This record gives sequence, structure tokens and C-alpha cells, in this order.
Amino acid sequence: MRVHDNSQVISVPYQEVCAVLTRALLKFEFAPERASFCAQLFADASRDGVTSHGVDRFPRFVQGIRKRLVNVHATPELVSSNGSLERWNGNSGPGNLNAWHSMARAIKLSRHHGIGCVALANTNHWMRGGAYGWQAAEAGVIGICWTNTMPNLPPWGASDPRVGNNPLVIAVPRPHGPVVLDMAMSQFSYGGLASYRARGESLPFAGGYDSDGRLTTDAAAIEASERPLPIGYWKGSGLALMLDLMAGLLSGGQFTHQITADPQEEARLSQVFMAFDLSALANAKTIAELVDRVIHHFQFSERTGEQVLYPGQRVLEARRESMAKGIRIQQSIWNEIREI
Amino acid sequence: MRVHDNSQVISVPYQEVCAVLTRALLKFEFAPERASFCAQLFADASRDGVTSHGVDRFPRFVQGIRKRLVNVHATPELVSSNGSLERWNGNSGPGNLNAWHSMARAIKLSRHHGIGCVALANTNHWMRGGAYGWQAAEAGVIGICWTNTMPNLPPWGASDPRVGNNPLVIAVPRPHGPVVLDMAMSQFSYGGLASYRARGESLPFAGGYDSDGRLTTDAAAIEASERPLPIGYWKGSGLALMLDLMAGLLSGGQFTHQITADPQEEARLSQVFMAFDLSALANAKTIAELVDRVIHHFQFSERTGEQVLYPGQRVLEARRESMAKGIRIQQSIWNEIREI
Repeated sequence: MRVHDNSQVISVPYQEVCAVLTRALLKFEFAPERASFCAQLFADASRDGVTSHGVDRFPRFVQGIRKRLVNVHATPELVSSNGSLERWNGNSGPGNLNAWHSMARAIKLSRHHGIGCVALANTNHWMRGGAYGWQAAEAGVIGICWTNTMPNLPPWGASDPRVGNNPLVIAVPRPHGPVVLDMAMSQFSYGGLASYRARGESLPFAGGYDSDGRLTTDAAAIEASERPLPIGYWKGSGLALMLDLMAGLLSGGQFTHQITADPQEEARLSQVFMAFDLSALANAKTIAELVDRVIHHFQFSERTGEQVLYPGQRVLEARRESMAKGIRIQQSIWNEIREI
Repeated sequence: MRVHDNSQVISVPYQEVCAVLTRALLKFEFAPERASFCAQLFADASRDGVTSHGVDRFPRFVQGIRKRLVNVHATPELVSSNGSLERWNGNSGPGNLNAWHSMARAIKLSRHHGIGCVALANTNHWMRGGAYGWQAAEAGVIGICWTNTMPNLPPWGASDPRVGNNPLVIAVPRPHGPVVLDMAMSQFSYGGLASYRARGESLPFAGGYDSDGRLTTDAAAIEASERPLPIGYWKGSGLALMLDLMAGLLSGGQFTHQITADPQEEARLSQVFMAFDLSALANAKTIAELVDRVIHHFQFSERTGEQVLYPGQRVLEARRESMAKGIRIQQSIWNEIREI
């Protein structure tokens, strides 16, 4: 292992991260191939710069296995089928494997029906949602997916968490790197708030309310009040509600209000995976040109800062850096994982 | 006509609004049935409280006919079909009729394929997007639709308008009144900014930048800078881009960067209409109970103000009021319409 001792952060080669995570999972009777792919999805998230839902979250995933929230043997099962729309039961399997399976199935359905949609009940946290957007885009289809979560966001006009931050992913293929939006309905995630607090920095914009009901840029005050702000105030609150309604209705699974409101016990989520086949509409070269032109126009705006980033743009930069220099991981987390 | 002279605002019975608008349209060689339904959609929007995209916008719609941006005779035409996904050409027909036709077709497709999707190119402003959400919900399906627009919103990190505010509609059926989200990607619409300015009020939250690049609650300053704020800053900017990419790719029509950046000339938009058939998944009674339970839970949050509203809740109240007391219309606009 190459270690750059950079105040508690080390760099670990990608292959070694995959190997160590796989070895840990095998201790829980994971089938070898599944252990390897599950580990890879964690490593990929960190490699791509999404550490909060990559290696950093691995210890909590293992806790979920120990608590039997995650059944390492379970795979998704078809419940009902109606042309382009299928309902599946996730059977409490590993969230990232279930999600990957579901997007793969949606892509396959789209080849036959123009659109494919898998609504998945009883699954677990999918970790990095953007992974399934990349999966779709790399298959040449437009991908959309979202998940509900436990209640962790107050509806607009309320102070107690009653909706989920319900991350939404939309991905469009592009040869020079797909355009992948991966956004939760809260302005800042709890992970993001914790990072600002740890660095002693103010949020760049109000991210929620303090305990006195005032909008604040103080991350710690928002963590204390549990009142993060939905994006666009009333708009993000409404969008979070709609995503939850759709996920529950289409999958037949739990709605946010039925999910245990404890981050350590969050389970039995509902998710939706959609794919739109583009191959019948235009050839890949034409699509690439059209998307490139839109992105070009977007990026050549009059800049107010350093750059105008399209969604997902930073991923390829992070990936190159990680593959060249290793994946950056906090020493303490890495130690914890190696001791599993 | 019953007139309550309330400082320039009058109340006109719904049937009379429909009749006067129909008469105006017939002067432009509209087929009678189409004139009548087009007029009704304008009247319905005002009746439901969305005046900015109802009667208030009718004079501009007529301008579009005069300028030949809107072809009153044109109807949508099927371009290609791939199972659940169809591409249609709007042929520059009236935007609200084209949109209604498209959602009706998506609903029909969903009965056969589980999901139906109509991607519509070369259409005009759809006026009130929520109308097509209500249309879907009243047919018992989940509806999603969105439109791109001319460039009217700076991407995050830029100062010039390069993305559209691309309104997004999501609707879920419910016997006591459907849940219908109808939201643009800007925090406040230009119509909304104009209203705050006219009333001499500050925006409740920063709604954009002034010409010096400072976030402001001064509506006039935002109108001057043309820098309204996307919802959730970078997030709304990204979501607007994705909606445009999808609308253009699926429909084969124009992307925002190709649409004339003049509100009076905005034309040849791209739109997407989707329907998800619920009838194969559960009976209507079960769906109603599930949705009611989610809405109940949402509304019984700990309130910080008067009430926690679900998306679309105000529509039914506005509708009742309009049907009882007449539709409230500015005297000057009504005079203008009567003189067409």
C-alpha cells in the first residue's frame, strides 16, 4: 500500500481498495462474485470523488449486515409485469447490487418497449445514486432513477422531518463523459453539513433553520435543529413528496412515512429505475453531436467564477486523479475496514 | 356580466369567459370545436388561480397567431413509434391543444404498455402546465410532463441566460383532489417578480442577483439584471439542463439554445408527456387510501405557519371561489380581449 501521510488521509490503490472490501464482505458469507461487485461499487464511488457514499460508508453497510437489515443472499424478484413497467421485490438485499440489477433490467426493457421502468420495493440504501446513471449512460440510454429515504427533511411550512431528501438521478449519454445529475432534495446533505462544521466554515448559502427558526449558514445549528432546507424552499418540498408518492405507488413498497426514522435502522426503501432507448430515435453519432452542442453552449456562458460545470463533470477528473495517485481515504476509516 | 369594480379587477362568470375567448379565436379561422376547447383551457387556468397563464396571457397568444408563430389549423403528427415511446411533430399548432393531445395519447399508450410517453417537437407555449397533470390524474394515471423554453435563466456560475426555466409537472391521482406539482426551475417567475414589484413588496427570499452580482430580494433589480436564481442554486441549474437535454433528444426538436431568445417570438418548443398506468398495480380504492395516508402525514407536520400545503391544494379552493363568484380578471386585459 502506498501511503501519503497527509494528516489522517491516505491514498490507497484502487485494486487494493477492491480487494480489502471484498475480503471483508466474504466474512459475511457473501457469494464471491457478489462480494467482489458490491466492493467494486463502493470503491468506484470513492474513486469518482463521492467518498461519503463510497468507502466512508462501508462500515455502516457492514453494520446493516450484522443487524440483518441487509440480507447478503437476497436478490430482486419479479412481482408483476405490465409491458414497459415492472414491479420487483428487493427482498432486503444489498442496496447497491439491487439497484444495479434494477437499472440493468430497465435498460433491457427499454430495448423492447422504448422505455423500461423497474419499481423496486424492500431494498436498502443504494449508496451512490449516480452509479446507476452512469450505468445507463454507458449503455447508451437516458437513465432516470430515484429513491425514497427515511423522513429527514421538514416539509415547507413545518419544523419536523416528514419527507425524505429522496435523491434523484438523471443521466444522458455522451462519449466525452456522460452528463449525470445526482441530487438530493435538501440544499445540503447531513454529510455536507458535517464537513463544513468540521472545517469550521460557514455554508455558502443558508442551508436550513436554527432552533429559533431563523435561516442560517451555521452547519452545526442546522444539525442541531434537524431543519435542513429543501432546494427552492416550497418547490423542493413538493418535489420530494411527489418522488415518494411515485416510488411507493409504483413499487408497492413503503412510503417515507413508513420508514424507520433512524439512520442506523433505515431499511425497506422504494426506488424507481427508468431507461429511455435512444437507438431507435437517432444514431449514436448524431446524439453525441447534439449533446455536445448543448454542453458547449452551457459552458460558454459568461462566467462569474472559475467555470460553469455541467452535472457530473467533476467525476472524470476525480477518477483520473484516483487512478493515478490512489483513492484518498481517512486513515481511521481504512483501519476500521481492515479490522472487519 | 357581473362586475365587481375592485380597483381595476372585475369578476366574470366562467361561461362568459369561455364564450368571449371562443368568439375571439373564431376570428382567426379556428375550427369551432378547437376554438371552444382552446378558450376553455385559458378560462380553466384563470378559474384555478393560475391567471398568469390563463386569461392574462390570451392577448399574447393571439399575437402569436397574428405573427404566424401559432398555426391554428395544425395538429400533432406521429413521426415515429417505439412501443411505449412515440415522437410527434407539433407542427406549430396551438400549444395548449397540442399538449392536451399529447397527454391524452400518453395515457392511451400507458393502457397498453404500462407507461406511455409522447415526445413532442415544434410546439408552442403550453400555457398552464398543471392542466396536463390534472388531465392525467383525472384519468387515474400518474402524469409527468415538462417543456423547454427559450434561454431565460443563467446557469449556475454564469450571468447570461443560457438555460430555460423549463417547467416540470408531476401529478398523482386522488379522489379528494389530485396532487399536482407544477414548478419552473427558477425560484420566481418573471410574472411573479413583476407582481412583487407592482405591489412594492420585497421577495420573501433572495430571488436572483442585482446588476452588481449580489443576491437580492428586490424584484425590479432582478428584472433589470436578467439574473433570476435557479431553485437550489447549482441544483436547479443542473435539473433545467437535464430536462432540456431529454426534451430535445426524445422529441428530435429544438434545444433551449436553439430557441429564439425573445419572449414575443418564443416558438418551436420541445416537450415530454408521460403517463404511468396504475390500474394494473392496484385498485383505485387502495391507491386512494395510500395517497391519502401520505398527504395526511405530510399535512400533520408541526407547522411553523398557518398550514402545510400539498402541491395543487390551492387549486380546488380557487376553483370553488371562481365558480361561485366569477373569475377575477384585470379590467384592462378584459377590455383588450373583448376588442379582439
